[in-house]
Order: sequence, then C-alpha cells, then structure tokens
Amino acid sequence: MEISNSQRAQVLIEALPYIQRYEGKIVVVKYGGNAMINEELKKAVMSDLVLLHMVGINVVLVHGGGPEINDMLDKLGKESKFVNGLRYTDEETIDVVQMVLAGKVNKSLVKHLSELGGNALGLCGLDNNMLVAKKLSSEEDLGFVGEITKVNEKIISDSIESGYIPVISTIAVGENGEVYNINADLAAAQIAAKLHAVKLLMMTDIRGLLRDVSDESTIINDVKVSDVPRLKSSGIIKGGMIPKIDCCVEAVRRGVECANIIDGRVPHSILIEMLTDEGFGTMFH
Amino acid sequence: MEISNSQRAQVLIEALPYIQRYEGKIVVVKYGGNAMINEELKKAVMSDLVLLHMVGINVVLVHGGGPEINDMLDKLGKESKFVNGLRYTDEETIDVVQMVLAGKVNKSLVKHLSELGGNALGLCGLDNNMLVAKKLSSEEDLGFVGEITKVNEKIISDSIESGYIPVISTIAVGENGEVYNINADLAAAQIAAKLHAVKLLMMTDIRGLLRDVSDESTIINDVKVSDVPRLKSSGIIKGGMIPKIDCCVEAVRRGVECANIIDGRVPHSILIEMLTDEGFGTMFH
Amino acid sequence: MEISNSQRAQVLIEALPYIQRYEGKIVVVKYGGNAMINEELKKAVMSDLVLLHMVGINVVLVHGGGPEINDMLDKLGKESKFVNGLRYTDEETIDVVQMVLAGKVNKSLVKHLSELGGNALGLCGLDNNMLVAKKLSSEEDLGFVGEITKVNEKIISDSIESGYIPVISTIAVGENGEVYNINADLAAAQIAAKLHAVKLLMMTDIRGLLRDVSDESTIINDVKVSDVPRLKSSGIIKGGMIPKIDCCVEAVRRGVECANIIDGRVPHSILIEMLTDEGFGTMFH
Amino acid sequence: MEISNSQRAQVLIEALPYIQRYEGKIVVVKYGGNAMINEELKKAVMSDLVLLHMVGINVVLVHGGGPEINDMLDKLGKESKFVNGLRYTDEETIDVVQMVLAGKVNKSLVKHLSELGGNALGLCGLDNNMLVAKKLSSEEDLGFVGEITKVNEKIISDSIESGYIPVISTIAVGENGEVYNINADLAAAQIAAKLHAVKLLMMTDIRGLLRDVSDESTIINDVKVSDVPRLKSSGIIKGGMIPKIDCCVEAVRRGVECANIIDGRVPHSILIEMLTDEGFGTMFH
Amino acid sequence: MEISNSQRAQVLIEALPYIQRYEGKIVVVKYGGNAMINEELKKAVMSDLVLLHMVGINVVLVHGGGPEINDMLDKLGKESKFVNGLRYTDEETIDVVQMVLAGKVNKSLVKHLSELGGNALGLCGLDNNMLVAKKLSSEEDLGFVGEITKVNEKIISDSIESGYIPVISTIAVGENGEVYNINADLAAAQIAAKLHAVKLLMMTDIRGLLRDVSDESTIINDVKVSDVPRLKSSGIIKGGMIPKIDCCVEAVRRGVECANIIDGRVPHSILIEMLTDEGFGTMFH
Amino acid sequence: MEISNSQRAQVLIEALPYIQRYEGKIVVVKYGGNAMINEELKKAVMSDLVLLHMVGINVVLVHGGGPEINDMLDKLGKESKFVNGLRYTDEETIDVVQMVLAGKVNKSLVKHLSELGGNALGLCGLDNNMLVAKKLSSEEDLGFVGEITKVNEKIISDSIESGYIPVISTIAVGENGEVYNINADLAAAQIAAKLHAVKLLMMTDIRGLLRDVSDESTIINDVKVSDVPRLKSSGIIKGGMIPKIDCCVEAVRRGVECANIIDGRVPHSILIEMLTDEGFGTMFH
Repeated sequence: MEISNSQRAQVLIEALPYIQRYEGKIVVVKYGGNAMINEELKKAVMSDLVLLHMVGINVVLVHGGGPEINDMLDKLGKESKFVNGLRYTDEETIDVVQMVLAGKVNKSLVKHLSELGGNALGLCGLDNNMLVAKKLSSEEDLGFVGEITKVNEKIISDSIESGYIPVISTIAVGENGEVYNINADLAAAQIAAKLHAVKLLMMTDIRGLLRDVSDESTIINDVKVSDVPRLKSSGIIKGGMIPKIDCCVEAVRRGVECANIIDGRVPHSILIEMLTDEGFGTMFH
Repeated sequence: MEISNSQRAQVLIEALPYIQRYEGKIVVVKYGGNAMINEELKKAVMSDLVLLHMVGINVVLVHGGGPEINDMLDKLGKESKFVNGLRYTDEETIDVVQMVLAGKVNKSLVKHLSELGGNALGLCGLDNNMLVAKKLSSEEDLGFVGEITKVNEKIISDSIESGYIPVISTIAVGENGEVYNINADLAAAQIAAKLHAVKLLMMTDIRGLLRDVSDESTIINDVKVSDVPRLKSSGIIKGGMIPKIDCCVEAVRRGVECANIIDGRVPHSILIEMLTDEGFGTMFH
Repeated sequence: MEISNSQRAQVLIEALPYIQRYEGKIVVVKYGGNAMINEELKKAVMSDLVLLHMVGINVVLVHGGGPEINDMLDKLGKESKFVNGLRYTDEETIDVVQMVLAGKVNKSLVKHLSELGGNALGLCGLDNNMLVAKKLSSEEDLGFVGEITKVNEKIISDSIESGYIPVISTIAVGENGEVYNINADLAAAQIAAKLHAVKLLMMTDIRGLLRDVSDESTIINDVKVSDVPRLKSSGIIKGGMIPKIDCCVEAVRRGVECANIIDGRVPHSILIEMLTDEGFGTMFH
Repeated sequence: MEISNSQRAQVLIEALPYIQRYEGKIVVVKYGGNAMINEELKKAVMSDLVLLHMVGINVVLVHGGGPEINDMLDKLGKESKFVNGLRYTDEETIDVVQMVLAGKVNKSLVKHLSELGGNALGLCGLDNNMLVAKKLSSEEDLGFVGEITKVNEKIISDSIESGYIPVISTIAVGENGEVYNINADLAAAQIAAKLHAVKLLMMTDIRGLLRDVSDESTIINDVKVSDVPRLKSSGIIKGGMIPKIDCCVEAVRRGVECANIIDGRVPHSILIEMLTDEGFGTMFH
Repeated sequence: MEISNSQRAQVLIEALPYIQRYEGKIVVVKYGGNAMINEELKKAVMSDLVLLHMVGINVVLVHGGGPEINDMLDKLGKESKFVNGLRYTDEETIDVVQMVLAGKVNKSLVKHLSELGGNALGLCGLDNNMLVAKKLSSEEDLGFVGEITKVNEKIISDSIESGYIPVISTIAVGENGEVYNINADLAAAQIAAKLHAVKLLMMTDIRGLLRDVSDESTIINDVKVSDVPRLKSSGIIKGGMIPKIDCCVEAVRRGVECANIIDGRVPHSILIEMLTDEGFGTMFH
Repeated sequence: MEISNSQRAQVLIEALPYIQRYEGKIVVVKYGGNAMINEELKKAVMSDLVLLHMVGINVVLVHGGGPEINDMLDKLGKESKFVNGLRYTDEETIDVVQMVLAGKVNKSLVKHLSELGGNALGLCGLDNNMLVAKKLSSEEDLGFVGEITKVNEKIISDSIESGYIPVISTIAVGENGEVYNINADLAAAQIAAKLHAVKLLMMTDIRGLLRDVSDESTIINDVKVSDVPRLKSSGIIKGGMIPKIDCCVEAVRRGVECANIIDGRVPHSILIEMLTDEGFGTMFH
C-alpha cells in the first residue's frame, strides 16, 4: 500500500517535537541480539542511527558480539569451559575477544555507518584508556572477565564534538595492562551515565516487559525505577530480563533521564521509539 | 487510512539523503499566494520551515503581503491608481506598505514560527540597511516602487549563525532615506544569490510548468535555464508565470544551485519537495 | 559663539572616565514623549545612541508610540473606549498597535539609526517569543493590555553580541498566541533588569524630580530608592511621575545599578547625562 | 658507565633546536619489521613517540602486521597461495587481515602508548571512510589487495587537533563496500603527503643506504630524490630496498619535506634521528 | 568662558564620524619634542591616547628620548663625539641609550597611561626580536647607530589584540646580538607600514608645512606624496623638516593611508586632528 | 667522555614523565646571584628556560639586579646610605633602579632568550599596573622601598597565552604614581601564588638546606612547610637563608604546589631539577 504525500508530510511533522527534545543531547544505544545477526535488521539499525545523528542527536553506539566470538573460537578449535553459565576467559580467549570485537565487529559497523553517509569512528576501551577495569569478583575464577572501575569519557566526548558517531567495543584495560572482556549492557549503562546521556536504548529480543509473557498486548510501557523491586517480587520481571533491567535502573539512578528496552527484532524500532508518537517497548525513568 | 510503523520509518529514512545534502546549507523560501491566505496551508508551511530548520537546514523566509496591503488601504479609504497593472505608490501608500508588511505580516509569521518551536526573527530591508534600492525605472511614474541596488546580507548571515530563521519583508531604503516597495519574488532571488543559497523555493498557485496547461500530468519537472528562451518562444512559458520563472533563472545564473516553482496550494509541498523522493513542481538549474 | 579647539579637546577628555565606566556594559534607553515627536529632538537622540554605541557602550532602545497609534486609529475611524484613563484594546486595536509599533515606529527608528551609521535591528516581543505576557489584571476589562510574565532575553543578547543596537517594540505574546500591548516604561525596566543593564534612562517631558514643581532649580539629582516612599508621602513624588519613578525603583531593586529620569525636551540630554560631568535629571540608585 | 648531570643537561639542551624545528608539525612514522616483533624495541619506539608527542610534535603512527596475520592464518589452518611473492587474498583472508590489524595489532599499540602516558587513538581506513581503494591492478589476480585512490584525512586531523596520537591500520574500503589490504609503506607515504607532514620516518631492518652493503661505514646520509634514478642504475639502490625508497621519493615529490629510512633494530633510533645532532640512517629530500 | 551643554553635545557628536572611520584600525603616533618635555603637554598627549584607545582605535606609541639620554650621559661624565651632527655611539653609550629609553622613558610613559586608565605595555625592539637592524651605512663610522632590516610585528599585534596600547622604544638587535640605536621617526614609519596602520601621526615642534615660514596662516593642509619632490625643489620643504617628511612619504608609499605632521606644542593636537572637523598640521597621502 | 646514542635516548626518555607532569602548568623562576653574574651560567639558565618553554611548560622569569644597580650608582657617583643593611632609596636612586632593572637587565635577558629562539617579553610592575605597592613599613625610613599590595596578573597571563616567556622586573607603582623597589624574592613568591603556579624555583648561591653546613652530603631534599618552624628553632635554617625560605613557605601556603631552593652555581640546575630523576637542592611543599 502506497504512502501518500500527505502521509509523508504527517510523519515528518510528527517527528518535529521529538527532534526538538533530543537535539544536541546524547543517546546511547546498546546494540546486540537479533538486530545484529540479521542483515536486514542491521541495515535498519544503521540507517536509524545515521538519521538520528543527521538531525542533530548525538548517538553513541555500544555493541556486543558474542556470536562472532564463538564462531572464531570454533574456527580456532578452541574448546570453551563454562563456569555458572559464563565462559571462562583465558589469555588466548581474551586475545580473540579483542580481535573480533575491536577489529571485526566494530570496524564493520563503522564501515556500514560510513557507507550510509554517517561519520563513524570505531573505539574500544583501550583507546586513550577509555575503559579501566578490574577482575570481576566471583566465586569461581572466570579469567579475564572484568568489571569497569572507571570510564574516561574524554575520547568519546571529543569524538562527538568533532561530529562523529562513536562506535564502542566493550573491552577494558586493567591496571597491569591486561585486557578484560566487559558485559556490553553494563558498559553501555555506565557510559551513558558518565556522558550524562538523556536516554539509553537497550536493544533486546523481546517485545518489552509483559504482564503476561504469552500476550504481547499486556506490555507495560512505563516503569518508575522505584517500582522495579515490586515488579521483581511479583514475578513480572524475571529470568533473563533481570540483568538488562538492572542496567536500565542503574543508568537512571545515575542520572540518565530514561532507559528503554526495545525490540530489536522489529525493523526501525529505534526510529519509531525516538521520533514518532508510537513509542516502543518499556521505558524506565 | 492508518500509517504503519514500518511506513513511518520508511518515510523518515527516505528523508536521510536529502537532510545530508542540505545540512548547513541555505534555502530561501519565497512565500506568498494561497499558502499565505489559507490558515491551514499557512500552518503547514510554518511547520515545514521549523522542521527543516530543526534538522540543520538554514531556512530564510521572504514574504509578500499584497492582500493585507489592499485590505488596509481599503480600510483607510485610500483609492488606488494603477499604471500598467502596477499600483502607483504614493508616500501615504508606502507608509501603509511598510507598516503592514514589517509590522503585521512579518511579525505574525514570526509569532507563528515561534509558537511551533522555531527561533524566528523578523527583519525588513531597513534593518541595518539590508536592502538598498533606487526608484524603479519605468515609462510612467510608479512612485515609491523600487529595484534593489545592493543586498547587505550581513544581518541575515548573523541571524542564521545565531540560530534564527530570518523572516524578511521586502521594503528597501533609498539613498535619501526614502522607503521603497520591492517585488518579493525579485528580492528573494537576489537575497538567495547574495547568500549563496543552495536552493530557492518559489511558492506559487500553479502546479508547475505544464506542457498542456489543462493537464497537470504534463508537468515538466526539470528545466535547464538555458532552455528557458526556447520554452518561452514555444509558448510553454507564458503570461503570469514569466516573471516568476525569470526570477528563478536570475537566481540560478547568479549561483544558486537550483530554483523551484512549487505549488503552494498543496499542504507541505515544501517538505515533500525537500525531504522526499517525490519532488514537486518544476526545478530550474 | 565659537568653540575653541582647546574646548573641544576638554569636552572629549572629560568624556573619557565615563566611557571607561560604561564600556562593554548595557544601557537601556526608554524613548518616548516629545523627544519622539519633534524631528530635531529625534535626530539628536538617534545621534546620541549611535555615538554611545560607537564608543563601546551596548545601547538597547525601548520605545513607545502612543501618538502614532492614535493617529492610525483616527484614520481608520476606530472609536476609542476608555476605562479609568486606559484605552480598552479590542482585537482590531491590538492589530493596529502591533502594526504601528513594530512596522512603522520601530523600523523608522531603525532606518534613522542606520542612516547615521549605526547598526540597528528592529525587534518586538514576538521575535523568538522575547516578551511573554498575560492579560493585565484590573477591575474592569481592558482587552488586550498585558503584563510581562517572562523576558526571553536571548535574542537581545545575541543582537548585542553581533554588534547591533536592538530597537524594541513592547508588544508581547500570550500563552494562546494572542498579542498584548505592554506599557513601554514597565517593559524597559524589566528588560534592563533581565539584561543586567548598568543603567536605565527614562526619557520624559519633565526636568526631573523637583522639590518645587514651579522652580527647576530645586531639582533633586540623586535619590536612593529607599527614600522614594518618604518622597511620595511628602508629596514631592506625585501624579503622573509616580508610575515612571516606580519603574526606576523596580529596575534598581532588580539589580540595575541606577535608573535616571532625564528631560527628553533638551537636545542631547542622553549624551550629557552619560558622557559629561554635568549629569542631568534625577538619578535613582 | 654513569651519565653525569652535566651530560644530561647537554643532551636535553642539544634537543632544543630540533624541538623548535618540529613543534606543531606532523611527522608520520611507518612502523614495522624487527622493531615491531622485539618487545624491547617495541617499548623503545612507543616511548619515543610519546616523548615526541609530549614536546609538541604531532606524531602519526602507521603500522603493518604481516607476522601476526601469518600467525593467525596458520592457527586457522588457512593455506596461503602466493602470486609473484604476493599473497593471494581471498574473502576469508581479508577478514582475518582486518581483524588482526585493526583489532589486535592496532589496539595493542594504542594500549602500549596509553600505558606510557600517551593519548592514543586507534584508527583504520574504514573509520569515516579514511582510506578509499580499488583493486590493485596486476597481471595475476591477487584478490583483495588494493591501492589507495583517496585519503580522507579529516579524521586524522581531527584526532591530532583533539590531542591524540592517531595509530593507523592500513586497510581500506572499496566503492562497493569491500575491504582491501594496503601495503603499509605506500599508505604511510600517501598519508604523509595528504597531511602535509614535515617528515616521514620509515622503520626498516637495515642500517640505511650503503655504498657497500658489507660495510656499514659506507652509509649515505643524504640523498636528493633527483639522484635516486642514478643510484638505482648504479646498483646502489637495489632489491628489497627499492619499494621502500620509492615510497620515500613519492612522499617527497608530493610535498613532504624529507623522508628517512631508519634502522628499527637500534633502540630509540627515532629519538636519535629526531632530537639529537647524530642523525640516523638515510634521508631523502 | 563656559562651554554650554549644547556645545558639549555638539563636540561629541562631531566626533562620531571620525570614530566610525578609525574604529578597529591602527594609528601609530610618533611622540617626541616639546610634547615630551613639557609636563602639561605630556599629560594632554597621554589623555588623548587613552581616549582614542577607549573609543576603539588601536593606538601604537613610538617614542624617542634624546634629551633624557643626553642628561644621563652628562651625569655619567661621558663626553660625546659628533660626526656630521650625529652622535658617535660607542658600546658604553648604546648601553645608556637602551637603559634610558627602554627603562626610564618607556616605562614612565606606560605608568602615565596606566594612571589615566589606559592598558599600556612597554616594548622595545629587543622584545621577541621585534626590530632587527644592521649598522647604518655612512661615510664615517657612527658606532652602534642602526637601520632596521626587519620588523617582526607579531608582538605588537598580539599586544593590540589583548587590548593593550603598545609603547615602543626604538632600539634594535643586530645579527650578532649587538644593540643598535634607531631613529624613532624612521622606526615609526616602518612599524606603521608593517602593521598596515591607517594613519601615522608625527608630533613635531612646528605648525605644519608653511608656504611662508614666517606666517602660520600659509599652512598647507594637504599634500600628495607625489608633490613632495616639487615642494622640495621649490624650497618649501627644506632643512630640518626634510627627514620627517621623508618618513611620512615612506609610510604612505608603503601603504599607510595618510601621515600627518602635527604640532606637539599645542595641547590635545592629536585629539583635534583625529576627532574633530578642524584637522591639524599637514597631511601627506 | 663521549655520550653514547643510547645514553642520549635514556636521558630524553627519562625527561618524559616530568614533561607530562608540568605541561601547560606555570613555573616561576626567581633568577639572581651568581647565575646572573657569570656569563656561562647565565647562558645555561637561558637555555634551560627556552627548553622548558619549548616542551610546553609556561615559564615566568622574575629577576633581581642588585650588582648592576650598585654599578650604575657608582658610575653616577651616588653615595649610598644604609639602614639596617638595607639601602635607603631616595628619589634619584629609585630612578636608577627602574632604569637599570627594566631597561638594562630586563631587556638584555629578553634579548638573550630571543637569541636562543625563545619568545620573550620584558615586563615590569609598571606595565598595566601589574605590581601595586605601598611604602614598606619599617622602623627607620627606607625611602622608596615598597611591599606589594596587589598583583594584577592579567598582563602576565595574557603574555603566557600569546606564547611568550614573561621576564619581570620587580619595581611597583604606588597609589600616587610613585615607583617602589621591591625585593625580587618576595615578588616572585607573590606572583607565583597569584598565577597558581605549580612550582617556584629560587636560584641561590648555596647547595640547598644542609644539616651540617660544612658537609654538602647532609642536604635535606624535602621539607614540609609545617616543619620549617622546628628547623628554624633547631638552628638548621638560619641567617641569610631565612628570608628565602620564608618566601618558599609563603608561596606554598598560598597554593603553589612546591617551592625549591636550587643552586645557581651549577650549570643547568633548573633543567636537572625539572626534567631528570636527580632532583636538586631542597624542595618545600
């Protein structure tokens, strides 16, 4: 079905107040899941980011890359050892993680954004000591899995000021020069907080927070972070969504105006959330 | 009929390359005719301008105001004398022209843009001696009808740089301090040229240049200024459209990349011309 | 009688400490009364402003225009209804007020300043929503007479920074887009306060505050705002001068260093007050 | 043997005129060979670069990484096919090249510089489309081996202006989004030319250009590029040094003031060449 | 005789077009002669300079100091040897010249200007190698009397930009570090040329160029530099005024708009020349 | 004994962390004593300052000049009267002080620095009223010996920002325009405090603070200012070193990070203190 010219204009005009609200502000997008694997979805995300940047919103892209890491470890015949569901990361593995994230995934995203006319710049936590970390404390040793102790945001701010979209791989440097793998959701939340971002968008593979997981119409659009404990105890927030929502809560608690969980399986969900009256997924504020 | 989210995204993404092309560039819009009289059309134009400004395009609005002038002269019981279809403009009339254009029409447009969130600033040719003119040379005396001898564009550039949409009434100052009424189409073309605008949009009450005036499907979308003489001699360009097209040609000849005649009777024709694949009216380049 | 070269030099040198004191500071001049009607006085005021601007003082001109409004209403055969001495302002009247102030008076002053080499820019409260107002609360309905609720001074500051003399008509915009007529004295005081002006000059048609109104030699040159209540109760401040002096007090209370009532009937009274040892009129501080 | 305080001072003072000469200028260092494999040499190079940057010289580091690429291909069990001594680079190989250069080598160098207090930023040709290439024309197909068609230096200049040491991997993007492997020597020469660098330092594993290859004392310190053809025909420039010297000539021809071949096997050869009276290797100018 | 307020205003207003003409431009004043010896005249000159600076004119003061040098040499019992009327300047003498000019005269002028509210900064040709000179070639050896070979104007421009009045002693540095005494008239002309000054004011002890030296009413106000040879051959320009006029001609030939000889014996002659309709002395252009 | 290339590199690399620490910071050097009299030492100091400036450290030089003043007074046959070891400074003497310090010593240092490639600018307390003083209160009248009441540091900061090394003579201006001679040590401490310098270097003619004055190996490298009273009462700080150390304490108390007494008799002691691991003299912090 055709879109009429009048509808085109309506959509563009509808975007106006949102552009006004976000202009010159920083929005951090955590990119991962299906939206990163499916080529069509990936292209939609990249287009969305370039458009947002073009209308004056300072987009920062933080990405993961689990599947590509697995793939490379497989090719290298590297067997994986798991501890409580988390991969034990030895020195050889962290080398592969760095190489795949900062060399393959990151620079390919940068290339994709550039092809669409975006000015993108690929960074990782090693650039100018951007992300400093220590070994993640856990019961069993996980090797080079780290938690961020400091975000040196200057290189990100400089990139934004010079007009680039920073694309960030979440590896970090330890105090003895060792490299750590960092959970990308957590890193995105901490980066958003340090940059005083106005919004954190978490791309996931779910529709949002549902009262009844089997019925997408029961989506909760709006959650105060103070209500999260109650939603956890009532079992509405549960399982795999807990860590992601905890990241949202963390970001909001540290000053980000709102954090959204949006469905990465729907093309252009970022644009719809950011620039239309529709909204999308669940917003924590 | 509803617009789906996917269509919304499609429209926004389609706008991307156009935003990229025009970002940071100057576009001069000559506003007049039906689009200025009809309240709904007026609101659509104002929204379009605010949106274009918001996404980074430096919009300059040049307006006429014939009907409002007539209206005020009527109220004042001032009889009009016409010379070859042009109004003879005596001292009392030029006073009314200044007052209506720079006080009523201009500041009301500014108010309208401001209400929609645009940062608008109302100027006329008297501000900082922006438009300097001499008496229009014509066979019969037309009184205070002038032709521009100099555009001092500094005040317009300063306004753009400070982030405003300049809204311009086309009265000018003579070398002895007298005020002249200036044809707004001509003024828009000269202002566009002096500002090195990338585009001049002439709002008219016709669909564009038609091969067969009775059939809108015969519209010519694209005209090289070098073809204009041929189109005149073949009778395709004729009558009332000649002066408007001459303004377009003049602007292009003096360095404006392209000048478009667009149909002010269609809501959001500016937006459709600027930000969609559709295009609109006839482009001279 | 000739002025000798040595006297010329003496006058210029005498101006030095005053220029030093006011350089880079903002001075708001409320312009009205005889100084606005008499052509010679008007020219003297315009010259004074251009000179002050030239030596580095940031002049802001706020003007009224009652006589011109009356004149136009007369021409339009519009009968006036008065309420407690204030004109009832219906919709048709506010239209005329806007047109005359922002189109005729304002832009003619701008033209005058420009002719003398000043860089002037005509603004009104509608430009970038500079003056926001609500209906003036009064016992009887006065129509579109307003009181300022907010001064958005950015457009004035931007004009000053770009090197212009802002000339301001005191109409304002209401929250529903309606236009209000604002008392120019009050507006000048509020603008001066918001701009952190160092001085407010109120041009009036009296010599200053006199102990004995029949004897100009009894002028009081210097009044602390804390003494104003006493001067009112003793009958020295009375009648038509009360609202003007209240504006001076208001400005000083809100941070303007001093506010002066100066005699607009004397040519160059601004210059004499600002740049000579003489002083002029009555200063409130 | 101890260095006395007076000797320390002497060395520092001797550096003064060199710092004066190069301050605020751009120096491009092509890094490779032994200096990149040996950990001690690597640390010396990194220290040299941080010091040069610290005293105000804008250092740009361009690196290769052949051995690491070979190593990874080996680990992946990828067999290599050679054409005239050049590796045929299929799609899988170019993926590995990108990953190893931009992810492993580049970011590890950045980490090293950062540990020493340098502000380093890792870039590759994909960032903001910095290096654009086409397939290298050769008799036999070499796959994704490219030659640069355009250097978009803006991202390098921006990095320098923001105070960073740009570290550059020489992969490039083709017009259809394909990635090419680029010879780092050639890339360094072209980047130096585009940046108007004052100096190009080529780190090699030889002492310099020798008249008698078996006698290091016959080193030629200074060569005019116009003498290179004669030195080639006389057999002094020959074999493996030809392409490196051709890069030096190319850089000088395109405006770089001088290009030096320096011995990467000697610790701190960069510092000695740049900041002491000694000089080092062979300079082409 | 009293100056009336209206006369005060007249004088100030009369200054307006001159301020407009010179605002932001550089005016070099060569200060010497009676105006430097007589305390009252000195104070008048200092006030004039501060006023000109205050109204936005970039004043540069170049001074001599012959009498003070003589005075100090006397005190030191240093006998002077003259060669063709020029003092032979041995090493001991040049030391005294430097000390008296740059330490006593210069800094005392700076103090005087500062006391009057001017922001003054004392420089000599040794500061940042501002004036470079070689030994003046003459038939008989004059010792350390030099002629300027290069004016490094950066330190003067920097001072102007930072808002200071540069006060300059005309000693210069030779290529072997020796110091030279430079004729202040010549230095002023060369500095004015290098700074692209709009005007050079030469303070002298004569009324100007007179047709009849015994009759001040025969002053020639205006001379084209092309007429100077004729005026020399006709004997109107003669004797001691030749070198001063040659400096004026030199300055004009090298791009200074006009050079004036003004009478330093008349208080405020600078102000009268610069800011009144009167003009003063003789202008070369 | 030759320095090897590897030693050269070692020295330069060793300087790195010190350059990093001081880059962009202000270091005030009080220059006097033997280092000022001996030509070789003077040249070493000048080189050190130029080098420090070149690597990005903002050096400010404050100098005395007692011997040159004595020398000139002698030549003038001016007998000196002493009061408690301090010279009584009459009007004639203060004139000589100004002339010798600001004209001879200051400008000769500036020339020396410029010859070595430094951008130096000679200032004294009279420039832009930099140092304001009152008569030093003492039991017996000392004439024009003053103590600083205000440091107007703007002219120093402006010089630093424009890229110059300010060289400062410590004469000051009194409130009636009289000139005062100021102790250079005290002035240096107060200037360092006002400029928020990171370090004050006091050049003296002793090795540092010694536990046993006859044994240089008993030097105390590091003193907390809170320990100074104890060191005084224990007799380790005594005699002529008391006022110098009091200046150090004063500077540190008012915010300077550390103040060092260094031995001006050793060539390049500044460089060794600032840029090597050696350190030198005694540091107060």
